Amino acid sequence: MYTKLIKIAIDAMGGDDIPDVPVNGIRTFLSLYPEQNVFFVVFGDEVTLKRKMLGIDKSRYEIKHCDKFITSDEQVAFAVRHSKDTSMRAVIEAVKSEYCDASVSGGNTGALMALSKIILRPAKNIDRPAICAMMPTKKGKCVLLDMGANIAVTSQNLLEFAFMGEAFAQVVLKKKNPKIGLLNIGSEDNKGHAYIHEASDKIKESHLKDQFIGYIEPNQIYEGEIDVIVTDGFTGNIVIKSAEGLGKLVKVLLKNAFSSSILSIMGYIFSYLGIKNAMQIMDPNNYNGGMFIGLNGVSVKSHGGADKYGFANAIHTAVSIVAKEMNKKIMEKLDLS
Amino acid sequence: MYTKLIKIAIDAMGGDDIPDVPVNGIRTFLSLYPEQNVFFVVFGDEVTLKRKMLGIDKSRYEIKHCDKFITSDEQVAFAVRHSKDTSMRAVIEAVKSEYCDASVSGGNTGALMALSKIILRPAKNIDRPAICAMMPTKKGKCVLLDMGANIAVTSQNLLEFAFMGEAFAQVVLKKKNPKIGLLNIGSEDNKGHAYIHEASDKIKESHLKDQFIGYIEPNQIYEGEIDVIVTDGFTGNIVIKSAEGLGKLVKVLLKNAFSSSILSIMGYIFSYLGIKNAMQIMDPNNYNGGMFIGLNGVSVKSHGGADKYGFANAIHTAVSIVAKEMNKKIMEKLDLS
Repeated sequence: MYTKLIKIAIDAMGGDDIPDVPVNGIRTFLSLYPEQNVFFVVFGDEVTLKRKMLGIDKSRYEIKHCDKFITSDEQVAFAVRHSKDTSMRAVIEAVKSEYCDASVSGGNTGALMALSKIILRPAKNIDRPAICAMMPTKKGKCVLLDMGANIAVTSQNLLEFAFMGEAFAQVVLKKKNPKIGLLNIGSEDNKGHAYIHEASDKIKESHLKDQFIGYIEPNQIYEGEIDVIVTDGFTGNIVIKSAEGLGKLVKVLLKNAFSSSILSIMGYIFSYLGIKNAMQIMDPNNYNGGMFIGLNGVSVKSHGGADKYGFANAIHTAVSIVAKEMNKKIMEKLDLS
Repeated sequence: MYTKLIKIAIDAMGGDDIPDVPVNGIRTFLSLYPEQNVFFVVFGDEVTLKRKMLGIDKSRYEIKHCDKFITSDEQVAFAVRHSKDTSMRAVIEAVKSEYCDASVSGGNTGALMALSKIILRPAKNIDRPAICAMMPTKKGKCVLLDMGANIAVTSQNLLEFAFMGEAFAQVVLKKKNPKIGLLNIGSEDNKGHAYIHEASDKIKESHLKDQFIGYIEPNQIYEGEIDVIVTDGFTGNIVIKSAEGLGKLVKVLLKNAFSSSILSIMGYIFSYLGIKNAMQIMDPNNYNGGMFIGLNGVSVKSHGGADKYGFANAIHTAVSIVAKEMNKKIMEKLDLS
């Protein structure tokens, strides 16, 4: 149990349903983890937030007024140029000034990446920070990056993602020599885009050569044989959102399966605990909260369409990163490599 | 019930486990659908095939010897140049000469597309034929294309995929005005690659404008609100193989859930039928067999890693396309558009 107070900067104006999801995410986090020593600094419109946050223990948060916010359809360059006084910029500045230990935002991914990079600065040798996502597998968890910060990439970017993925897996998944796979649509050398082939060559020439198992296909992600899945942000986002959609479909199919007859309802009651556990492993809310990796500061991205449980999980991710000093350890490894 | 004899050309040398999967796929098809009036023309090494096909009713097949086959790691241009006397070329030639009604191959997708295009010729106005896949949704099925034939695409290719997807959904899904969505990583105009934005503009200017619902994210595929999902072959393949992997994970999680206690085993017994139905909807084998669309002839692609059940389903797809004259109807619609 971590005892030092952890201060989390919350962008109350980032995501699809604002400020309700961030505010209720805080509420949900506090009810799920009442013992955690966390204080929230909530950035957004003060008048609205004062009303919305009614009922939350006032000793657990403060509101910082921001006049503006960045919308999710803004072009990144425009958003950055006009980011002064926005809630998104404010949460990252709060981490930079060390007023807060980490930030959580569900806003415009491109703008959040650009601002985080400008304000927090990337690690030595890292040109493009990435967002890491944890994925469920048959044997536990693996990490996938990039999950959406870098849409178009070069082979050099993919090599850097492999380095960052290795550091993440060492620190967070406790794997000494994590196995690295490069996502592609086939294991043969002639499959997929040219920059993927070039990245494969670069990884084979790097210190990762013995941990690199080559191309992997998306169906292998869930087998649990690979610890780090390297891909561009477009494809990574496609994989995550596919898993999210299919997870919801499974829920509906099982609900129908269990309510199809009296017998099957009894079956559900008998199997409740096991099923609940399986469903939790599949629930995308439990994987919400992507960590920006390669930055001198903790910035967590919540999925724009997350609900309060998803946002609470993103807060939990941020708190864990701070409590376990994960980012500090990852940055140390990256600076050494 | 279709009574005319349907002749299917089988590439016994395409896929990961050859000729066992194609041969046992035939065996499985015949035991699952004994009443279907289907005859197989099996292309591959005669000596091996004679031995492997022992036990299959000899009135249901003939073997055509081929000296060579195309491996899955061959570059497309090389494979095409050296395709003479290969089993893959032979199955497509058999369709072209009308000796067979359709072909099924689990081999090198790029080579299969190139040979199909060269030999069978694409429809008027179609530059790049695509592979269609059916996906399960909460409300039934939808069609996704391209699932892997065209790795890098232009906005014009995506527009053609939308046209072909419309025709497929009209004929196969019986939707008069199918809803078309363009796969992207966000609904906002600033998300994703430039060629996706251009394709969106082109579709809005086409006859599909009223059916086009804009960008959709992968999680929306499974909601069942969209009939046709348009994407490039790389991304489409990623989506299909993600679904495959996650489907298998769900199976393992549920197996664990149901075997975690005596109570849960009883639960499984009580819910067996409902669960079996849900699992069937999720089972990738039931979706194996991608139809090449936009070609003057029926060519079906089986997943290279499919097992005998998957291959049998690919045969079933080919048989249905022929029996219902789907390709003829689709080509008529494409020639009119």
